[in-house]
Amino acid sequence: MDVETLALVQQLYGAQSHYIDEGHAREWAATFTPDGEFHSPSYPAPVAGTEALTKFAADFARQDGVTRHVLTNVHVTPAAGGLTVRAYLQIVRTLPGGPPELLRQTTITDDLVRHAGTWRIRRRTVRRDDMKENR
Amino acid sequence: MDVETLALVQQLYGAQSHYIDEGHAREWAATFTPDGEFHSPSYPAPVAGTEALTKFAADFARQDGVTRHVLTNVHVTPAAGGLTVRAYLQIVRTLPGGPPELLRQTTITDDLVRHAGTWRIRRRTVRRDDMKENR
Amino acid sequence: MDVETLALVQQLYGAQSHYIDEGHAREWAATFTPDGEFHSPSYPAPVAGTEALTKFAADFARQDGVTRHVLTNVHVTPAAGGLTVRAYLQIVRTLPGGPPELLRQTTITDDLVRHAGTWRIRRRTVRRDDMKENR
Repeated sequence: MDVETLALVQQLYGAQSHYIDEGHAREWAATFTPDGEFHSPSYPAPVAGTEALTKFAADFARQDGVTRHVLTNVHVTPAAGGLTVRAYLQIVRTLPGGPPELLRQTTITDDLVRHAGTWRIRRRTVRRDDMKENR
Repeated sequence: MDVETLALVQQLYGAQSHYIDEGHAREWAATFTPDGEFHSPSYPAPVAGTEALTKFAADFARQDGVTRHVLTNVHVTPAAGGLTVRAYLQIVRTLPGGPPELLRQTTITDDLVRHAGTWRIRRRTVRRDDMKENR
Repeated sequence: MDVETLALVQQLYGAQSHYIDEGHAREWAATFTPDGEFHSPSYPAPVAGTEALTKFAADFARQDGVTRHVLTNVHVTPAAGGLTVRAYLQIVRTLPGGPPELLRQTTITDDLVRHAGTWRIRRRTVRRDDMKENR
């Protein structure tokens, strides 16, 4: 893995949570390819494509309180056609005047491909630590 | 963003929390420029300049228990005169024999400039997730 | 610190928690040198050598629920014969259907050496924030 690739991936993951947590829905959707897919057991169906991903992020920002996607343990490996990235993602919610609450501990596995001169997520799969079937 | 800059910034943020959490007040203050400013709604007034920043860090180390500044989601972007760095910063306190407690979830926005051959923080602004006015 | 070294260290720490948390005991043990040592106040004695480290990781994976080693604040410094790496390591456990629980906040100090063309851990020392004697 060359250092330029690692730096680009590091910046992608550095930026992504800020986008959705601050309500920048289009910027968050743009971290995926135009046909990008988001698969999570927290939601009834996969979210696919820029338009649906943008709506998903905009809906997320309308929740009560402040929610942060705390991302750690990023590991990048080569994969057929691109990269695989694994990381831990915590959902931390704070209601006004209240303490922060660690709502969910999840693991993400992302397929990354080159698109428009940078790395984007083609498919994200979320597993929740509280769901045995998703381990 | 070139890889050397990203690596230097990564090391700065890797080091900084250890300095204040281990009581190395002068080293923590030196991550700021000599006229560096720390703005946080958790304290009554901004802290500015090496001497005041050193005293601030020394006072911090005298608190009960062990407090850790857990830093994640570092995102670096170019800015006029330097760099802007955004990150999440959790305050985790553990009292002797007790469980760790997530006290505060905050977001930092730092203005970085070149100083003495490296990158230093010119101004840090902390927002607390529990305070609506600071979102 | 050159960028290639930092990138290799970043990948080592990105990978390591996934190995133990997903039950890949041999891969976890291989992040240490063949005579690597793991010193933690959470366990009655140090664990040393590939065989013992592999058994340690395999035993860990047999615990109830899902446990994640959430690693943050990685700081790399040169040391005699190699590198020293400091980081924060949180132990987060989730039982089926339950919320994630922050069990322990710890600090790790690792001695890294070159081995077989990459960086490996020669000795890890864990300190627990809840134990005064280990600060």
